[in-house]
Formats: sequence, structure tokens, C-alpha cells
Amino acid sequence: MSGVFVAFEGGEGVGKSTQIARVAQWARAAGHEVLETREPGGTALGVELRALVLDPVGQVTPRAEALIYAADRAHHVETVIRPALAAGTLVLSDRYVDSTLAYQGAGRGLGDGARAVTEWATGGLVPDLTVLLDLDPAVGLARAVARSQPDRLESASVEFHRAVRERFLALAAAEPQRYLVLDATLPEDDLGARIREAVARLTG
Amino acid sequence: MSGVFVAFEGGEGVGKSTQIARVAQWARAAGHEVLETREPGGTALGVELRALVLDPVGQVTPRAEALIYAADRAHHVETVIRPALAAGTLVLSDRYVDSTLAYQGAGRGLGDGARAVTEWATGGLVPDLTVLLDLDPAVGLARAVARSQPDRLESASVEFHRAVRERFLALAAAEPQRYLVLDATLPEDDLGARIREAVARLTG
Repeated sequence: MSGVFVAFEGGEGVGKSTQIARVAQWARAAGHEVLETREPGGTALGVELRALVLDPVGQVTPRAEALIYAADRAHHVETVIRPALAAGTLVLSDRYVDSTLAYQGAGRGLGDGARAVTEWATGGLVPDLTVLLDLDPAVGLARAVARSQPDRLESASVEFHRAVRERFLALAAAEPQRYLVLDATLPEDDLGARIREAVARLTG
Repeated sequence: MSGVFVAFEGGEGVGKSTQIARVAQWARAAGHEVLETREPGGTALGVELRALVLDPVGQVTPRAEALIYAADRAHHVETVIRPALAAGTLVLSDRYVDSTLAYQGAGRGLGDGARAVTEWATGGLVPDLTVLLDLDPAVGLARAVARSQPDRLESASVEFHRAVRERFLALAAAEPQRYLVLDATLPEDDLGARIREAVARLTG
């Protein structure tokens, strides 16, 4: 028995949480075991690591930032995601490897070094499906800021967020069979239906 | 102008702090700018990362541990060690890359994956000299435990600490020109004289 791993990626304010909650509700109603989780912060250790990066006492260098996210991910994969998959669970993660490649690799300019580190962190675990919610960063940031005080990443420049968006799209273009790229300006119901359909193909 | 970077490595209770304090005192008296620092915990961020690993709320997986140390190191190298070297300072660090290779690579069985991660963290910065204080772990642990409550690494098995010692010795054997390996059971004064001599050759 092996579960299904679905990662949700995209910039700030694209609506990942909303869509994860919708697909989780549908899958539970259909009789699946479902785990909703997140990176960073999907474990007790991860919650502390997340606070160090998003609300730091002083500065955090880009490499340190990438490595803290990788530590969070290593712990999350080994103690949460892999055991859940082994038990046959549908795992829905709010962010995964692509967020490091986009935010630290492209946004912070670390390039492919970040990829090797993050792949070592996961021990090579790749999602069965990655849902990319794509949105103009100017729109997404306005949504995110309206919701709460901006954190450190949300406060970065629009150029940073444009580089992040472009990297997400490039990652999806490189492996089209594993990605579902959706225009996040579509109505929530339409997005939900498209995601449900793609997940249903995997969960059977 | 470029400083000199000396790392001090070895197991628990080998006397690194004592010898760092001695050589620092001598070098300052000789007119050098000296920075005494440490890993983990040589920066404000590092102090918090160190607490997460050595005194964790829950478990910490070996990969997460290696990545947290790498994050500490990346931040330390970029914000403390490189600027000090650029200013011509003699930098004395209590632990550096070799501790990750020995404790996580050998002790926790992560092997060479830990090396690639830690080398990416440093951006390739290698010490001018690494002083390895070598000691039977049974002796060193007894010293360390007599000093304070054992932390998470000190509490690991003697087999763990034997694997750590062997890796330190193997690293030194692979690059003899860059290492000074000393028997840590020698009198403090003798150790101090040998270290001073090696550092003086580098500082001129």
C-alpha cells in the first residue's frame, strides 16, 4: 500500500490553503485518509525553524535561509510525509522543493546549489503531482498583505517575486506530466474542480 | 591584507577551548588582531540553531541535524569569518567543517552527502590550519560529563564517538600539510607550545 503525494506551489496570496482545504474535504468524503501539511513548519522542529527565518532577530544570509528550509524539509519528509505515504495516505503539502528552487534559487540568486542541497534533504522524494497556482505577483502580494502583516518574504521586492514566478513556471514546463498549472485568477470552484479531477486520477 | 584561519577540531573534552584561549592570548600579546569564535553558535542566528539541535523539544533526524549545522556555518562564514579574514584578523574557530563530516557523516552514518552540503554552506572556505586534538573518547567523555550535564551529542554511545574520532584522524591523514594532530593527553603547556609554533609560521 502506498499513498499519493501532492504538493501545492505558487507565490504569496495565490490561494493554496483554500484549495488544499477543498480537495482535503472532497477526498475525506470519498473515503481517503488525508494529511494536510506544510513547509516550512510541518513538524515541531519545523515550527521553530520557520520562526527563525520568517521573523529573525537579525539578518539571515541566503545560504543559511536555504539550509534552514532544507533542514525543515528533511525532518518533515522523514518523520511525517514518508510514514504517511507508507500508510497509504493522500498527503497534501503547502509548498515543497520547488519553493526552495524558486525563492532561494531564483529569488535570492543561489541557483543550482540550492537544488543539490534540497534534493539531499528529501532523499529524492518527488511528488506524484505538483499543483502550481500561477498569479501575477502584484496581485498576489496585495492579497497576502491585505490578510496579515507582511513577513520577511512577503516584504521582498516585486522583482524578487517576479523571478520566483518565472522559476515556478520553468520547473513546471520542464516536467509537464507531473504538474498541473492553473491560472489562480479563475473562480475558486473552477480551480477546485480541476484539482479534484487531477487528484482523482492518482487516488483511483 | 588577508588574515589566517585556524580551526580546532576533536571530540568531547579534548581541551579545544583551553588551547584556543592560550593561543589567542599569545597572539594578542604579539600584536595580532584575534577573533575567537565557534560552531555552532558563532552568530545570533547560530545560538538559536545550536539550541534547536543540542536541546531539542522532540527528535531531530540526522539529515535535519546536518542541515541545521550547515545553516549555522553558512551564516557564520559569511557574516563573521570572511569579513574578519578580509580585515587581516587571526580567526580561531572552535569546530568547523570537519566536525560535521565526523559527527554527522561518520557518527550518524550520513557519509559523503554531508560533505557536499557543508562545502556548499562555506562557499569553499578551507582553514589555513586545522588543529586536531586527538583523545580516546572514553577519556574525553568522562572529562566533558564531569564539567556539565551531558548534551544530546555527549549522550551518544561510545561507538558513535569512536567513529567520530576515526573520521577526524582520516581527514587529517588525507591532508597532512594542513593539519596539526596532537595527542590531547600531553600537558597543556606542551600542547600550547606546539600550537603556537604552527600558528606563528602562518602569521609571520
